[in-house]
Amino acid sequence: MRIIVDVMGGDNAPLETVKGLCAAAAEYNASYIVVGDQPEIERVAAENGLDLTRFEIVHTETVMEMEDDPLSVVRAKSDSSMSIGLRLLAEGKGDAFVSTGNTGALFTGATLIVRKIKGIQRAALAMVLPADPPVLLLDCGANVVVTDEYLEQFAVMGSAYMKKMFDLEMPRVGLLNNGTEACKGTELQLAAHRRLSACDRIHFVGNVEGNSIPQNVCDVLVTDGFTGNVVLKTIEGVSKLMMHAMKDMFYANALTKVSALMVKGRVSEFKKKFDATEYGGAPLLGISRPVIKAHGSSNANAFKNAIRQAIDYSNSGIIYDIADAAAEFLAAKKAAKEAERAAEAQ
Amino acid sequence: MRIIVDVMGGDNAPLETVKGLCAAAAEYNASYIVVGDQPEIERVAAENGLDLTRFEIVHTETVMEMEDDPLSVVRAKSDSSMSIGLRLLAEGKGDAFVSTGNTGALFTGATLIVRKIKGIQRAALAMVLPADPPVLLLDCGANVVVTDEYLEQFAVMGSAYMKKMFDLEMPRVGLLNNGTEACKGTELQLAAHRRLSACDRIHFVGNVEGNSIPQNVCDVLVTDGFTGNVVLKTIEGVSKLMMHAMKDMFYANALTKVSALMVKGRVSEFKKKFDATEYGGAPLLGISRPVIKAHGSSNANAFKNAIRQAIDYSNSGIIYDIADAAAEFLAAKKAAKEAERAAEAQ
Repeated sequence: MRIIVDVMGGDNAPLETVKGLCAAAAEYNASYIVVGDQPEIERVAAENGLDLTRFEIVHTETVMEMEDDPLSVVRAKSDSSMSIGLRLLAEGKGDAFVSTGNTGALFTGATLIVRKIKGIQRAALAMVLPADPPVLLLDCGANVVVTDEYLEQFAVMGSAYMKKMFDLEMPRVGLLNNGTEACKGTELQLAAHRRLSACDRIHFVGNVEGNSIPQNVCDVLVTDGFTGNVVLKTIEGVSKLMMHAMKDMFYANALTKVSALMVKGRVSEFKKKFDATEYGGAPLLGISRPVIKAHGSSNANAFKNAIRQAIDYSNSGIIYDIADAAAEFLAAKKAAKEAERAAEAQ
Repeated sequence: MRIIVDVMGGDNAPLETVKGLCAAAAEYNASYIVVGDQPEIERVAAENGLDLTRFEIVHTETVMEMEDDPLSVVRAKSDSSMSIGLRLLAEGKGDAFVSTGNTGALFTGATLIVRKIKGIQRAALAMVLPADPPVLLLDCGANVVVTDEYLEQFAVMGSAYMKKMFDLEMPRVGLLNNGTEACKGTELQLAAHRRLSACDRIHFVGNVEGNSIPQNVCDVLVTDGFTGNVVLKTIEGVSKLMMHAMKDMFYANALTKVSALMVKGRVSEFKKKFDATEYGGAPLLGISRPVIKAHGSSNANAFKNAIRQAIDYSNSGIIYDIADAAAEFLAAKKAAKEAERAAEAQ
């Protein structure tokens, strides 16, 4: 297993990414190609006593910034660490690619450089939400506008992911909506509800409302990238707000501080449960090789977990499962077209 | 002040609604017209030792159920407690109307029976989110599809509400989006960003992401009713999940239970801060008279707070402020049309 790691981009790069990489290298059995600004990486490593001797470093001076136009990943900034990492992946120099960089650019670069699985219309950013049991939300922001056909493919890809990564026999798929009734939502949700109900590759459980996300009603939750992104970030914001409020509660006075000591272990568990950094990154499902997006504000632990996820995803064979499903999609589409033509000819 | 109260509909009606009504009557200086199933209301009151003598009861046997088609509020179920309450409001028999019933039906009934403020294209369901300081989110589910023009009107109405209800000089208006940059979102958000930036009646602060909602970046947050509903319910779901996890943490063993006792007062504060029932109901901004939607699962306290909000909203004069703004919208539109015609004639 050989992981290509883009240590540039993101809010805390390359300090936290290099730290996370070293932690991953100590823990997981894999080799690493590190793409980024070599002098900067070496400076950070020296300052923090980190050992880089096990890594192959590919030097590049350009970084995809958060405000860069996504298309620049294949144009003006095609020499950036992200572009070079994606090209190494496309050329088979590694088994998976991890980056904290610009989501839009990673999506565009993965689609244009690494390419989609044949038959998949759009790749989707899939994120495991901190619920018990976990829920895979997709799309989390790659495609702000989708069709009901995309949503069906997201459902199939998400099911393949949860089946293998969480050992579920038949993951339950929900459609994020503003009510549980089939008549709810915009034209998109109405069409998607019909299409998902008719799809025999998945176990569709119907519409799911926002408050039901943590209530163990589905394992995969499909939506457009606009709503998915807003929901993902809202969950992040509310969790943070409540964690802070809890901290304030315990730090109010001497008595509450003693109380905090008494539940210390439990608070750590609580924090871990709702800590987004524990969940690793988000795979770009539908891309022909493993590409993992780590959170832009990843700390070392989050980045380490994203690398772990890249290894697991690459080992899982999920991409082959998605390719099989996509081939059947294509075959079914072709058959439908031929039947249509035959009917017209009569 | 005379409040019309629909005590039917909702998950816990009429028990919790009648309890909430009695609590409100004891606390707030107002008189009440109660609409609902009289024998049922009297039975619930007798069983719980509640005094109904101060209320005028209007008997009706029909209830708008959650699964009823919204339009039935003016058709098959025009004799329901909701329809009759709305008609009493339209006829000026009371100053405000409160209901826990079917949101779609309340929106439709308010629009068709009570009518919108002249110049307002669509009413919006506005909800105060549990943040510090509070944020008004609209639309929370009345209009699943909106235009950028609706969003501008929502921004103006929301600003009028927050100005009066929370004594803000110039409320900051944000546009819910999947990124802060002006280029983010679907066609709707792009158009809305341009329109809100050009609107001189409001203080537009730009795009707001989900994680920033509780971070004191805006006082009013506008979005379409689909996204707003999903976000509102997601916040509700995550808050509940975390409250439960905290409870589990404190109830784990004898030591943690002792710890819980030591922070008891703080936990109540914490709970109150994130408890949706403390925030009352959601006004239908844009309707020509005060209509307040209480949460479908309101307990007595939530329903009491919704009544308090109806009184405050009615006293505030917000509807007059919205009417002034709407008149200016109409005048500006008329002037633009005339200018266009004049240009064509030349």
